[in-house]
Amino acid sequence: MGLKRKKKVRKAASVKEKKKTVQQLLTQLGEKVLSQMEAGVFPVIEMPSRSTANIRYDEELRQYVLGDKKIRRTARNIRHLRPFTQLVWLAWTARQLMEQGKTSTLRDIFYMSQAYEIDFKDQAESDDIITDLESVIGYAREDFNIYPEERSAIYGDLEIEYTVPRYEGRRLNLTVHPDGVVIGPALATAEFIDTSAEIVICIEKGAMFTRFLEEEVHRKFKAILVHTAGQAPRATRHLIRRLNDELGLPVYIFCDADPWGMHIAQVIISGSANAAHVRELVTPDAKWAGVWASDILEWKLPSEKFNDLDYKRLQELERDPRYHSELWQREIQVFKKIQRKAEQEAFSRYGLTKIVDEYLPKRLEEMKSY
Amino acid sequence: MGLKRKKKVRKAASVKEKKKTVQQLLTQLGEKVLSQMEAGVFPVIEMPSRSTANIRYDEELRQYVLGDKKIRRTARNIRHLRPFTQLVWLAWTARQLMEQGKTSTLRDIFYMSQAYEIDFKDQAESDDIITDLESVIGYAREDFNIYPEERSAIYGDLEIEYTVPRYEGRRLNLTVHPDGVVIGPALATAEFIDTSAEIVICIEKGAMFTRFLEEEVHRKFKAILVHTAGQAPRATRHLIRRLNDELGLPVYIFCDADPWGMHIAQVIISGSANAAHVRELVTPDAKWAGVWASDILEWKLPSEKFNDLDYKRLQELERDPRYHSELWQREIQVFKKIQRKAEQEAFSRYGLTKIVDEYLPKRLEEMKSY
Repeated sequence: MGLKRKKKVRKAASVKEKKKTVQQLLTQLGEKVLSQMEAGVFPVIEMPSRSTANIRYDEELRQYVLGDKKIRRTARNIRHLRPFTQLVWLAWTARQLMEQGKTSTLRDIFYMSQAYEIDFKDQAESDDIITDLESVIGYAREDFNIYPEERSAIYGDLEIEYTVPRYEGRRLNLTVHPDGVVIGPALATAEFIDTSAEIVICIEKGAMFTRFLEEEVHRKFKAILVHTAGQAPRATRHLIRRLNDELGLPVYIFCDADPWGMHIAQVIISGSANAAHVRELVTPDAKWAGVWASDILEWKLPSEKFNDLDYKRLQELERDPRYHSELWQREIQVFKKIQRKAEQEAFSRYGLTKIVDEYLPKRLEEMKSY
Repeated sequence: MGLKRKKKVRKAASVKEKKKTVQQLLTQLGEKVLSQMEAGVFPVIEMPSRSTANIRYDEELRQYVLGDKKIRRTARNIRHLRPFTQLVWLAWTARQLMEQGKTSTLRDIFYMSQAYEIDFKDQAESDDIITDLESVIGYAREDFNIYPEERSAIYGDLEIEYTVPRYEGRRLNLTVHPDGVVIGPALATAEFIDTSAEIVICIEKGAMFTRFLEEEVHRKFKAILVHTAGQAPRATRHLIRRLNDELGLPVYIFCDADPWGMHIAQVIISGSANAAHVRELVTPDAKWAGVWASDILEWKLPSEKFNDLDYKRLQELERDPRYHSELWQREIQVFKKIQRKAEQEAFSRYGLTKIVDEYLPKRLEEMKSY
């Protein structure tokens, strides 16, 4: 592979420690409820309020965060009794999952509850309780083994060590399979051991991910390639953050040149308002590196006219606090002016390799000044 | 891993030979056009007609096939000149891709054409010409390096050997990564070397794929697990056929218990009418193994009422010739009676492991009589 100049991982491995912390938090939650009951008082669980009034964009942290408003869920209040019980059951279930080394999904949890006559009227209600538990303990649901259904993929010279049962302690280099390996629970909880990579490149489209692989972007640009498969699943966003945070690698995001592609990049960078209660799903230092509206002009890319939805979405983005910085505003203005969009594959107009041979090196050089 | 009792692959490896055949067919197409022109006649390309009138379901082959009707595309006819030229350009491009060991997508081809002033008015037109080329040479577009955008995944004790550049000759065991590896161009064109597996299990949902992995279905049932990610991408369908055909492994398909899940299974088994011109995307001996309508009753699964679309789809399936055999008709009648649907995850009502501990072994035993 010729990728043998390894760098040491800069930050201490932390997956197992975090797992221990989350298990402790779940146990403490149970102990607190129990001790209140033993003391003869109605048990109370406190959590930050997630109402719109308590969500604000933090310019310092560059993500949405919750304010100081708290809500108390108490068994004394008959209207609280139902969500209180659901929450305690969920915390117990999450702890079971972690102990048994099993993962589940939002949908699984909804069905599992039925065995315990924990009566969720629909999945929306059980999803909401899962978000409550995230708020209470301050960790993402993936940290207590509840994963999304969607899967994306990764490729590059990164050696990992698994922490999941059966594979614990085994190592894998992520160049092992030239179509990429799946980012599922095992990869999401692996420790990073070694890498020769100097950057991370996230790619919206499967076709472009394969193109970058075939053109050896991982070698030519010392890059780890992440396929987001459209909007990046939460487990993938968390992994991108870790690549940035633990390995100190700059992250560049390439999407289609349209408001939807911009937002795929933005959610990786600053997260979403509904995840304001967790910290570990954002990568504030990640950069949106293309395809920009101005690239459509500069590279004379084949493009299509905006439809009404595209234009409406662009207007929303213009008002969104996450889009206030210079680059976003500049490109939003170009989009407004040209009212055209282009896909990543549009570079194929100049042959399959143009995007890697010319566009990518030029852009990565330019990114140094953003 | 404890999966060391290997069986020899039964059928000679064929990927490289097929590649050579396809390249020859493309070359011959060009030579034929050239020799006609050199002889001073307008060049003609002949292909089977794909009009509805020429598509029929073949009960013997258990797939849709084309009849004997041919169409001739001739440069003499002014209305043919455009698609004739497009087809010749595409055949040339496909051959270039194969020679350079690069893959592309339907979308890429549309954009690439613009560099040559091959004027497709939209992607629908270029997709259509790609299907024409499939018809002319009788091979699927994946065989001339045009792949779908979608990706699914695989896991199990199967050793493969790559034929793609850079990885050519390298081997990989597909248990290497416990989240599964991506089925992309490299895996689709790999030779099968060795396996201890005795069956293939295809799974619609990512959550259930991960569940099966965590419960070690691959070990307990000596299975290769394929995640179809909803409707299986063509490259995945082709791989499933190869697992059945080259390794002689029976294939069992598990989907949600609804008309959409049934059809995911059916398309793996007998393909679709628009692929009547190619043979290698179907696995007629694959079996739909669940979740059946009757399982909803037998296992008392949590279920939801059919909506209008579900019911309309079920009526379509009832009339479809691919659904004429006993099992399908029986289950369609149960669906009609109960008008309810259930997801694979519904088994989680009985705990996460019920589906693997009880349902799966019982069903695999029952499948011997189907």
